[in-house]
Amino acid sequence: MATTLKRIYALKQVALREGEFDGFLIFNSANLTYFTGFSGTSALLIPRKGESVVYVYGVNHAHAKSELTEIKVEVVKRGEKLIEEIAKQAKALKIEKLAVDTLNIESWRALAKSLGSEKRLAIDPNSISDLRKVKDEKEIELMRKAAELTSEGMRVACETLAVNRKEYEVAAEIEYSMRKQGSQGTAFETIVASGACSAFPHGGCSDRRIQKGNLVVVDVGATYKYYRSDMTRTFVVGNPSEKQKNLYKTVKTAQAKAFEAIKPKAKAAHIDATARKIIAVAGYDEYFVHNLGHGVGLEVHEPPMLSPNSKDILAAGNVVTVEPGVYLVGYGGIRIEDTVLVHRKGAEKLTKGAYNLKAE
Amino acid sequence: MATTLKRIYALKQVALREGEFDGFLIFNSANLTYFTGFSGTSALLIPRKGESVVYVYGVNHAHAKSELTEIKVEVVKRGEKLIEEIAKQAKALKIEKLAVDTLNIESWRALAKSLGSEKRLAIDPNSISDLRKVKDEKEIELMRKAAELTSEGMRVACETLAVNRKEYEVAAEIEYSMRKQGSQGTAFETIVASGACSAFPHGGCSDRRIQKGNLVVVDVGATYKYYRSDMTRTFVVGNPSEKQKNLYKTVKTAQAKAFEAIKPKAKAAHIDATARKIIAVAGYDEYFVHNLGHGVGLEVHEPPMLSPNSKDILAAGNVVTVEPGVYLVGYGGIRIEDTVLVHRKGAEKLTKGAYNLKAE
Repeated sequence: MATTLKRIYALKQVALREGEFDGFLIFNSANLTYFTGFSGTSALLIPRKGESVVYVYGVNHAHAKSELTEIKVEVVKRGEKLIEEIAKQAKALKIEKLAVDTLNIESWRALAKSLGSEKRLAIDPNSISDLRKVKDEKEIELMRKAAELTSEGMRVACETLAVNRKEYEVAAEIEYSMRKQGSQGTAFETIVASGACSAFPHGGCSDRRIQKGNLVVVDVGATYKYYRSDMTRTFVVGNPSEKQKNLYKTVKTAQAKAFEAIKPKAKAAHIDATARKIIAVAGYDEYFVHNLGHGVGLEVHEPPMLSPNSKDILAAGNVVTVEPGVYLVGYGGIRIEDTVLVHRKGAEKLTKGAYNLKAE
Repeated sequence: MATTLKRIYALKQVALREGEFDGFLIFNSANLTYFTGFSGTSALLIPRKGESVVYVYGVNHAHAKSELTEIKVEVVKRGEKLIEEIAKQAKALKIEKLAVDTLNIESWRALAKSLGSEKRLAIDPNSISDLRKVKDEKEIELMRKAAELTSEGMRVACETLAVNRKEYEVAAEIEYSMRKQGSQGTAFETIVASGACSAFPHGGCSDRRIQKGNLVVVDVGATYKYYRSDMTRTFVVGNPSEKQKNLYKTVKTAQAKAFEAIKPKAKAAHIDATARKIIAVAGYDEYFVHNLGHGVGLEVHEPPMLSPNSKDILAAGNVVTVEPGVYLVGYGGIRIEDTVLVHRKGAEKLTKGAYNLKAE
């Protein structure tokens, strides 16, 4: 059974079997890509009984017809409203109660009005994200490729860093190396944050020139056939100071210990605590200002979350980042991050190499 | 008066003066960037009376404090809920009725619950987009720079296109050239769509090798300090056929005539019709499967829209794309697009050059 039909079947099993809902309506673009393998669709209606329909606008119609062979494609013509078309189809399929993955308040009200009542609608944000959390073999293959491209980008970062070079020039070389080898683009905005800016976890990348002895946080990700990857290394151009080396060692140990704790059935909050404890013992607890990690896949941030409050339990097929950091405002920051696949036994780093505080 | 305060003042004048609302709540990320000049905020509460507050998560707190000097920054701590914090502040400010730019149904319900009633909330998607439609001098300067980088990328595309080269290899060279010169990244996913794929308006970019005589649609945009640009050219590697030349001439004329019609007070639907008519006379009406253009700014697609059903009236300071196209499924497509600034008299193309069907 081909991918689209297999995933629709899986969603029906978890969300449409019990009888509360007799249809599922999908708007989130990553969810649409998950089901269709194509990025140009606008909605997908999955009835419990009857044929699923994907909706596209005219601009993407020809492309959708050529790509989507497993599913019925309906075009929304100029002047027609997507929400009204969907409501019409839901009525034709005699759908009484519809689950929706996500919707803004305006479209929600329009849909409720078209269906006759808000009671015929309910938000179900979890059924699809629960499916997406567990990557299948095909997805893992794509994520391996994205991680390989990302690791190559980081190798180039390490080679390219030099005193007086602008941060965005380093980003240019990283992105070029990934793109030339087949990356579809970056998974998020590349960070090359040097000096005081390295203390901002989302420090971006500016025309600042890298100074000798500065910490430089490089956070980069490639996308391959819609699947993303995420990796951070911290470098010093020149000789690191004792303080930098000690900070680096703390963060690296925290990452290593958290990684070792990753396995199926592990509590995500426990993995976070494993890293956080090492950083606390070193005296930097309050400077680790973010969660340990997040799921990665079609989106760069998706469930499960590795955070102190997370209720997630890890399972084989999860792909998560492990990214402890210490950020000393006015001084600089250090973060080390890999994208990690949870196996039936233990875990595997998909991003690799370039663990090297000294970049020169 | 600095930018943040000036823009907050302008919003108060249009949305909070009449008395229906006594507070405005902003969640849309481009809107947040518009008001704060910073991308790491999560919400902004603007009361009619009293001090505005921007909300950030801990991970961005230090960065926000260093960047946002004109506005009060509140951190949302781990375990706190953004929506609840906002509701608390709205109560403290005695806000009776709150306008919101955008919100998903779940957060809408949470906010309504925290405030005590859904009646204290209303969606106002237009006030801010009306402000953003008219670019000020500072914004125009950034958009000029984004357009300059984009034009440079297109020049490189024209140089790089060659028989047997993969589409993504061309994209790599384009993006590298823009990034090296200071682009913050692409404004959208670069399109290098050759052969039959050029007939898909959003044809993407794959590992397909470019063939001699194929049409190649290249659609590219740089981002500069959050402002975007958008430009398309269509090339043939080798000698174009008579049919290709004729199609190209039709699309180029349609673009030129539409551009000439752009001026303040022009109806957007009329600009669309100007281009559509030329394409219809040439017999390709049904193959122009999208709108003529869209606004560009902090987002690559934003109001005003140049479309058959648009109610927009152009004004000085608008920045729009003009991008007619003809797409013959199975054969190929042609699109020509520039990012255009509406002046007090007439209009100006911000993206420039590389009008050249023959790329070789």
